[in-house]
Amino acid sequence: MFKIELKVMPRKGILNPQSTAVKNGLKAMGYDNVDNLEMGKFMEFTIKAADRAEAEAYVEEMCKRLLANPVIEDYTYQIYQVEGE
Amino acid sequence: MFKIELKVMPRKGILNPQSTAVKNGLKAMGYDNVDNLEMGKFMEFTIKAADRAEAEAYVEEMCKRLLANPVIEDYTYQIYQVEGE
Repeated sequence: MFKIELKVMPRKGILNPQSTAVKNGLKAMGYDNVDNLEMGKFMEFTIKAADRAEAEAYVEEMCKRLLANPVIEDYTYQIYQVEGE
Repeated sequence: MFKIELKVMPRKGILNPQSTAVKNGLKAMGYDNVDNLEMGKFMEFTIKAADRAEAEAYVEEMCKRLLANPVIEDYTYQIYQVEGE
C-alpha cells in the first residue's frame, strides 16, 4: 500500500478568488508584512498498488480525470510506501 | 523574509463534505483501491519578520484569527528563510 500526499495549486498567472479573499482578509486585519500568497488544495490518501510505478500511474490518471483541473491548476505529489497489502 | 507552507486539514472525526465528494467521485470512476482520503487546504506565502520566532508568532496568530478554524481544523506549517529584507 502507498500513501499519497497531493498538492494542487493554481497555475501562475491564473486569478484565484480564494487566494484573493484570504490576501484581502489578512491586509484588512493589519498583516501588511504578508505577500505572495497562493492557496490551493491538499489531499492525503492511501492506494493499493503492486508497486510504486503502478501507484504513480493511478495518481497521474486520477489527477487528470478528477483531482485537478490541468487548465488552471498544477499538481505535485509524493508517494510513500506504508504497511498494508 | 520567510516563506511559509501551511497545511490546514479537517480534524479527525469531523465530517468533511469536500473529502466525501472526492471519495465518492473516485469510487464512481472505479478507483476502489483508494482509501483514507482527507482533503484540506494548502497555503504558501512570504512574511517579513525580524527572525524565525517572530515569523512563527505571526503565523500562529494568523491561523487562529483567519486561516484555520480550530474547532474543525488542524494546521501544520513549515518556515523557510529566504532572500529578501
